[in-house]
Amino acid sequence: MLSDIEIAQAAKMLPIGQVADKLGIEPEFIEQYGKYKAKISLDIYEKLAKREEGKLILVTAITPTPAGEGKSTTTVGLAQGIAKLGRRVAVALREPSLGPCMGVKGGAAGGGYAQVVPMEDINLHFTGDMHAVSSAHNLLSAMLDNHIQQSNALRIDPRRIVWRRVVDMNDRALRNIIIGLGGKAHGVPREDGYDITVASEVMAILCLAADLEDLKERLARIVVAYTYDNEPVTVGMLKAQGAMAALLKEAIKPNLVQTLEHVPAFIHGGPFANIAHGCNSVMATKLALKLSDYVVTEAGFGADLGAEKFFDIKCRYAGLKPQAAVIVATVRALKMHGGVPKTALTIPDVQAVIQGAANLEKHIENISKFGVPAVVAVNVFPTDTDEELAAVKTICQQAGVPVAISNVWAEGGQGGLELAQAVLELADSGSARFAPIYSLDIPLADKVRTIAGEVYGAKGVVFTKEAEKTMAELERMGYDHLPICMAKTQYSFSDDANLLGRPQDFVITVRQARVSAGAGFIVMLTGDIMTMPGLPKFPAAEKIDVDKNGRITGLF
Amino acid sequence: MLSDIEIAQAAKMLPIGQVADKLGIEPEFIEQYGKYKAKISLDIYEKLAKREEGKLILVTAITPTPAGEGKSTTTVGLAQGIAKLGRRVAVALREPSLGPCMGVKGGAAGGGYAQVVPMEDINLHFTGDMHAVSSAHNLLSAMLDNHIQQSNALRIDPRRIVWRRVVDMNDRALRNIIIGLGGKAHGVPREDGYDITVASEVMAILCLAADLEDLKERLARIVVAYTYDNEPVTVGMLKAQGAMAALLKEAIKPNLVQTLEHVPAFIHGGPFANIAHGCNSVMATKLALKLSDYVVTEAGFGADLGAEKFFDIKCRYAGLKPQAAVIVATVRALKMHGGVPKTALTIPDVQAVIQGAANLEKHIENISKFGVPAVVAVNVFPTDTDEELAAVKTICQQAGVPVAISNVWAEGGQGGLELAQAVLELADSGSARFAPIYSLDIPLADKVRTIAGEVYGAKGVVFTKEAEKTMAELERMGYDHLPICMAKTQYSFSDDANLLGRPQDFVITVRQARVSAGAGFIVMLTGDIMTMPGLPKFPAAEKIDVDKNGRITGLF
Repeated sequence: MLSDIEIAQAAKMLPIGQVADKLGIEPEFIEQYGKYKAKISLDIYEKLAKREEGKLILVTAITPTPAGEGKSTTTVGLAQGIAKLGRRVAVALREPSLGPCMGVKGGAAGGGYAQVVPMEDINLHFTGDMHAVSSAHNLLSAMLDNHIQQSNALRIDPRRIVWRRVVDMNDRALRNIIIGLGGKAHGVPREDGYDITVASEVMAILCLAADLEDLKERLARIVVAYTYDNEPVTVGMLKAQGAMAALLKEAIKPNLVQTLEHVPAFIHGGPFANIAHGCNSVMATKLALKLSDYVVTEAGFGADLGAEKFFDIKCRYAGLKPQAAVIVATVRALKMHGGVPKTALTIPDVQAVIQGAANLEKHIENISKFGVPAVVAVNVFPTDTDEELAAVKTICQQAGVPVAISNVWAEGGQGGLELAQAVLELADSGSARFAPIYSLDIPLADKVRTIAGEVYGAKGVVFTKEAEKTMAELERMGYDHLPICMAKTQYSFSDDANLLGRPQDFVITVRQARVSAGAGFIVMLTGDIMTMPGLPKFPAAEKIDVDKNGRITGLF
Repeated sequence: MLSDIEIAQAAKMLPIGQVADKLGIEPEFIEQYGKYKAKISLDIYEKLAKREEGKLILVTAITPTPAGEGKSTTTVGLAQGIAKLGRRVAVALREPSLGPCMGVKGGAAGGGYAQVVPMEDINLHFTGDMHAVSSAHNLLSAMLDNHIQQSNALRIDPRRIVWRRVVDMNDRALRNIIIGLGGKAHGVPREDGYDITVASEVMAILCLAADLEDLKERLARIVVAYTYDNEPVTVGMLKAQGAMAALLKEAIKPNLVQTLEHVPAFIHGGPFANIAHGCNSVMATKLALKLSDYVVTEAGFGADLGAEKFFDIKCRYAGLKPQAAVIVATVRALKMHGGVPKTALTIPDVQAVIQGAANLEKHIENISKFGVPAVVAVNVFPTDTDEELAAVKTICQQAGVPVAISNVWAEGGQGGLELAQAVLELADSGSARFAPIYSLDIPLADKVRTIAGEVYGAKGVVFTKEAEKTMAELERMGYDHLPICMAKTQYSFSDDANLLGRPQDFVITVRQARVSAGAGFIVMLTGDIMTMPGLPKFPAAEKIDVDKNGRITGLF
């Protein structure tokens, strides 16, 4: 069996100009990055201003398990299926982070015959967006420490700097560091640390900005620290937003690549799905909608985190009206939710499937609360039995949603035809009545209670003293109107990663609140969120190689 | 008067395909990065293997002063002048570092009407080479600390790690840091620090590598640390060279842009000129030589550092045979060498010019020691008087070298015609008999003595105990055959920045020796070399901005 990278490298790609041509993008708007990647010039937006928008389809998933769901693979395969049905379609996905490719994860650009290509480029430097985000972020860090060094006119409290540094690498030794050592000429000593680049608020901003002006205004609003008087210090006060925006002027342009079956794919922006909202850029989604009749996009993690934030943060800010949602499930993952250990997943077990489907049912319920019609995609594995698949179908029928078998990993678009048909029917039905699940006008705590109660199924929310104090402060500072970005484990509806399936009678504990004033949300932390991964004992990097012709091996 | 960026932005650039066409580069070898930048595919080298090489012209300078010399400007203007004379010519320059653009320095892509464009792109992210170097460097750092974390099988002494981290930013607070804090899960605490990316040995390797294979072999040889038993730990032992090379597979491809007068310009690689050799990549220089009749290149700092390393390191490794050298001087700078303070440079002072010309004379002598014929380019300023210019001419005539007035900043190629003619005459004369100034077979200390004696005019070299001990160790480890890379102040022939002109009776003190085994040289440190700049009180970044159309302002 071929590996993902072998399939990707065997693919015959179209020159990117031909891919763009499928969407009617004229050559003047194409800025090529090599032969198979392009950025699209921002001038195109004005030209398309009056064009009607296509239909937006969200791909989300059940609560993730180590068994894997295949959300990106389904997204790509679904679009390939829609294309096979003769419709004009585009994909909108997040950019993968370089760091984790060097750890255990390997690439993140779909899999099998449902991938975006050139896979190695997309997984490594791509068009440089991640690097631009790192540069803009770290320029701000340097300017912040320089301000303190140069007599600290703003009276920044070095103990209350909330702006850490970033690098796109899995580097645990940088999680907690002390900087500014070596004497007066070398900075003011203080505690600091590094996050991985995708955790940067700059990345979240890039993905929510409507245009370059909005980007700059959002950057200016970032809170980097607090003064000795407990007042927020913003990027605007440090006069860094202009240079940061200058560093991001290319990164803000959507990237165009293609799937293995030459479906146009916009891969642009990739914020974390816990401390940030986990969706590709608004600019890419909007451009895709202007250029094509159907846009298939995805959101990070399971629907409780990814879809909720996609709806309540991204769609709300960008005025998007999703027409359908796909909830990806696998028999294997449902079995894990039903109590089967990872080692026993290949043993047929209909009862476990039925038991685990409680998780799926709750996600189905949730999507309908947002007024979006859903279809369940069962991403099949060779070990799935007919009985198990039939059980999933029955459960979906009982829940009142269509269900389709998807075999895009092995068959590409051909394996996604059934799903494509189901999705088109839903999207074309006009039945969607999208609305966010909470209003921005209610207190921060009530927003959290709504999400926890309605989406997670929690019976209540507990706020620590610290979180309560911070929320009061944030409301005093005028950040009360912002939406909420929940930072919760992706492995459970609850805040306890061990509670699989559909946990009952649990309480969500909010330990800390933080403002991402530039991105425009309040992050509520329900536990320790890892913002800087580490490398495993044998990092993937040890196996990665490149031959004299530039061909990469060992990148999965 | 227009600023550099205003001149650059007003320029009408040719599409990069047309620039490539001037050198006969076929479209199949062009990998575009937007409309005005391209990387050249490595496949072209095989095709050009049998092509004869053009003539290589080095632009170097007198000892730099705060008055400025205009070396890059002269390089670009000279090439424009040669093009105006109807010859096929290309420029080969270093890539600027992003970090310093945010400090005081502004851009580094020539000036006035002798610039390379698109200026903002070249100065900011360009084609991502700097970012790729940072990634490869920091991946190695992460793998190194991960090795120690994961039980340290190689017995790396955490007190003897010589591989610091890098970022392309002026960030003084990162010079001296402590990492790995926070407990067992978060690394092993140790001292560390950041250098700016151009100081990375990976950058020096990228610039000396003959091809991708050689790059990987050089990476594998890098010494990152020493064991508790005092043995070197290399990248090969950490199995990082494959992944690092994979991260550099695009960065190794030469970048093509253009000058304001559409002369093809290869801008590729940019190592420091103190702890590294300060020249653009061998691959770019070789490609330029294959494709054009004349290639104008430059080396960092004054000729004592830049030209010496260009000859003894780059030309030696790459088998290059430079045909002519240009020594750039200005009346203002000669006056500073003659004792005039910076504030009085506009006051005519022929006597100071004559006195300061001792510096120029020594550089002229030095270039001839390498067997390369030289011409002096006087880069004129409006305040220069006829008498002062005449004095410089007389001095050059007495020294037996041609001299030409260059006014390329104000007039572009037209202002470089006199210089172009003088250079062509020299390059076409066939009088060059290039040879390095020392043999690789002599002991390390003797190599240093040769450089100090012959090039700097020192009466001797003192090695500290520490340096002597390290040199003995390095010879024991088998690094005795490597060339020397002197890390010395660029502001004086001596190791004391205050000794301008042509200092006499001085001794060079080598305080430390370090091996850059991948790049392939021994760095000899004669003082504190700043490998991480800081930001000034009012950083240039505060004035940099970008408007809604993506037009950047405030980048000089």
